[in-house]
Parts: sequence; structure tokens; C-alpha cells
Amino acid sequence: MTRDEFSPLSVPYISGRTRLYGIVGHPIEQVRSPEFVTHEFVSRGIDAIVVPIHVPPERFDELMPAIMNIANLDGLIVTVPYKARAARFVTSLGPQAQITRTVSVLAKRAEGWIGEMFDGVGCVAALRRRGVAIKDKRIALLGAGGAGSAIGVAVSSQAPRSLRIIDPDTARASAAVSEMQQAFPSFDVAAGASLDFNQFDVLINASPVGMLDPTACPLQVNHLPPHLAVMDIVMKPDETRLLRMALESGCKVIYGREMLGSQLTAVVDFFMDR
Amino acid sequence: MTRDEFSPLSVPYISGRTRLYGIVGHPIEQVRSPEFVTHEFVSRGIDAIVVPIHVPPERFDELMPAIMNIANLDGLIVTVPYKARAARFVTSLGPQAQITRTVSVLAKRAEGWIGEMFDGVGCVAALRRRGVAIKDKRIALLGAGGAGSAIGVAVSSQAPRSLRIIDPDTARASAAVSEMQQAFPSFDVAAGASLDFNQFDVLINASPVGMLDPTACPLQVNHLPPHLAVMDIVMKPDETRLLRMALESGCKVIYGREMLGSQLTAVVDFFMDR
Repeated sequence: MTRDEFSPLSVPYISGRTRLYGIVGHPIEQVRSPEFVTHEFVSRGIDAIVVPIHVPPERFDELMPAIMNIANLDGLIVTVPYKARAARFVTSLGPQAQITRTVSVLAKRAEGWIGEMFDGVGCVAALRRRGVAIKDKRIALLGAGGAGSAIGVAVSSQAPRSLRIIDPDTARASAAVSEMQQAFPSFDVAAGASLDFNQFDVLINASPVGMLDPTACPLQVNHLPPHLAVMDIVMKPDETRLLRMALESGCKVIYGREMLGSQLTAVVDFFMDR
Repeated sequence: MTRDEFSPLSVPYISGRTRLYGIVGHPIEQVRSPEFVTHEFVSRGIDAIVVPIHVPPERFDELMPAIMNIANLDGLIVTVPYKARAARFVTSLGPQAQITRTVSVLAKRAEGWIGEMFDGVGCVAALRRRGVAIKDKRIALLGAGGAGSAIGVAVSSQAPRSLRIIDPDTARASAAVSEMQQAFPSFDVAAGASLDFNQFDVLINASPVGMLDPTACPLQVNHLPPHLAVMDIVMKPDETRLLRMALESGCKVIYGREMLGSQLTAVVDFFMDR
């Protein structure tokens, strides 16, 4: 008999010294940040973990400040349906969040909590990584909801020649346009109606049309001009009907999940910037 | 270029579906439950993780109920200095905790939260595993603090012939004796003063004397009768001066860390019992 028989076995990935991060949402089972963002931490040699934190909507206002007061918790990712509500809990907002008034990430700093919106940054980074420039280009954006609005802001900040925002909810499209006009006064942004794709360089679908439905398409056309670069932020299915049509038309296509890599690099940079 | 280049890498040990458990304490860096209890979960095929949760004392009353309301959090381990304060937050107390009025584990059940004290259970299980019976034996217990009190209760529940509790704080020793007399009315428990170890079968040190100090010993003797089984719950150093003396005297010795294995089995059983 040795004493070591009684030494418990341990896992190597969590200890009392591991720094905590969370993703707050409702529901929570579908989130991917725990596995992806934790991997990004670990690959940088940072002893940290992102855990799922399921906060029911009726408890959000009570739980959010408490979670932010856990002393070894250094940051939070915010997902559906809390991106607007969470913005109220920070001391300051980053440049993207100041425009969208929504946050996707909260980071603890010496001077308090800062919130920033990264949903659009990943889209722009994915385009750049595939050689699709935004600067001086004509961009068509489908969808003016939370994701569309964040992408609109990120796109606008890259100085495109023009941006047209298309949403069946025309009031929402107008509101997004006003938001961007205020933030970027000198640039050509408007709500779009008819879409002649010969007049565009980049098409981004930020609407949910096509999500979980491979037969649904946000456009009523069967062909696109081959010079057009087409991105669809829908991740499931991987290849939406829009992207299939774009491929068949000879367009360069950028898949929704290509946003993730750049986004999580940016998010971990933001967490570590203190 | 394949799309897979842009699929982020992930870690295999955490996802949106992983159930959350925490260990609450102040400070937190020294706790071992995250690595040990998580290993116990994983070895049973349970997708769960124990994370360190550092709660500052001035925020305990505010954070504790909030943490317990996180919807995917199913249990908490409680460590220094919260074992008494945490007992106020549960709906019901397990049999050990009803006596000690302290809790080391909180588990979420359909009917509410239940708290139980496992600090003594691990000690008794470690003795049993090494062939040291408690039933009908004469037990000397050094220390009537939180750990000593919990061990006293666990020992008492195993029907020893007698229990003597020794603490330089005689009021504390008397209080522990009263506690056990109430809980186990018919049994021979008293505060001890002089220690003739020929009159005992098992000696348990539950005082902190010897912790982080290999020269300190809770006893003023240089030799022990070899029939005595000697357990020291101090874990650092592994071999305290008391255990060294016991070994040199020919006694069977049981090390502090031998408590851990049995205790974490019992804790995970308790978490899963719902």
C-alpha cells in the first residue's frame, strides 16, 4: 500500500487559478463560444475558460450585476436575447457599441466594465481574409436587425463607396440608415429597394432567411453577376440556397462560419487588452 | 482553399451543454475541487465542470442567491470562510449538516436546494478504507473547530464506544460535546483533558497544528503506543510531525489527503442523487 493510491486523479484544464469567462444567454445549449473561445485562450497559453451561463430573462437584471462581481471572472460574451439589455451594465462602450447601442462582449478593466459589439467585425474580417475589400466598394446589405445593424456599422467604418440596406421592414431599414448617417456623416448610405446587382460589388445576407431551411432564399432571382462577392452570415445550413445560387453563378462566396475565426481572435484580444 | 480552414478549433471539455458546478470561497486560488471533482464527473461520463468562484466576503449575501439562480448550475461546493454562512441559503439540510449547522456542498433538487456537510464523511471513509473501524472503538479527536466538529459528528454517527474531544479552547470543546450529546443522546462523549493514549484506539488530529510547519505538533509527547491508529487531516506537509512520530512509534498512520478520494466520491453521488 502506498499513499499515492489515495491521491485523487485530476483533469488538466481547470484549477483554482483558472480565470473565469462566461457566455450569457437564453437558451444556452446551442452556444459555441465555450469550446471555441476557450481554445483560443489555451492556444495563447492563457489559463482561462469560457463557461455557459444560462440566465432566464426574468432574472437577467438581478443576475447580471452579481455575475460581474465574481472576483475571478474577467469577461462575458453576450448572446441572444441580451445584446441590448447588457449594454446598460457597463461603465463604457467601445466604438462599435456606441453606434449600435448593443454589446456582444463585456470586459473587466481596472476602471470598470467596457462593452463592445463584435458581430460586425467578424464579417468584415472574413471578407478581408478572402481578399474582398470594402473600401471604395458598393455594398448591399440584406437585413437591418441586430446582426445586420452591427455589420452595417462595421462595414461603414471601412469607408465603402456606398451602402444600401434592404429589409422588408422598411422602418427598421430607415432606422439603421439614420444610425449610420449619424455615425458616418459624409458617406453614401440609404435604404435600398430594387436590387440591380450589377450596381454592387459585395452582397451580404444578414437576414435570417435561409436559416435551417435550405429552400429559402432572401432574393427572388435565380442568377447573380459573377463579379459579385456574396457572403451569407447564416451558419446552418453551411451552404444556404443563396450561396448555392452564387456558386452556380460563378461568384466568390464567403460562408457564415468564416466569421467565427476572426471574431474570436478579436474577442480574446479585447479580453486581454488591460 | 477549403472552407474548413476557417472552422475554428475547439476544446473537447466544455460546450454549451456542459452542466455547471462551482466552488465558492475566499481566497480561491488554492482550491483543488475544480480539478478533482471535475475528474470524478468525467470518469463517470457526466458532462459537467466545477469552476472556481471567488466571492469576496462583503458580497457573499448578494452573490450567493444569484449564483444559485443560474439555470444551468446544479451544485456548489463551499469552502473557507463560508461553510456556516452558506447554510442559510438552502431549503433543507442533510443529516450531518443538521447537527453541524455548516455545509460543504449545496445541490439543486426539484424541491429546492439541499446542503450537506461532507468534511467528516471523508475522514471516516479514509479510516474505513484503511481497515480502521470506528464502531465500538475509543476515539480521541484533537480540535473542535469547523473541521473537528464535522469529523466529530461523522465519527459519532458510526457508533464508537467513546469520543473525547480535546481543544485548548475548552469552551469550544464543550460546545462540540453538547452538540454531539444532543444528536446522539445515549453515547459516551466528553471533553478530554489529559491524554493517556493507552486508553484510546484511534487518534484524529483535526486541529490546524502542523499545517505548513513540519516542526509543530499538537501533542507534547515523543512516543505513542503502537496499537493506536493515527490520522492527521493536515494535508501540507503530507507527513506532519505528528505522523512522523506515529510512524516511528510503529502506529498505523492515515494521511490527510486520503480523505479526498472518498469525499469526492460522496460529493458527486450527492450531486447526482436527484
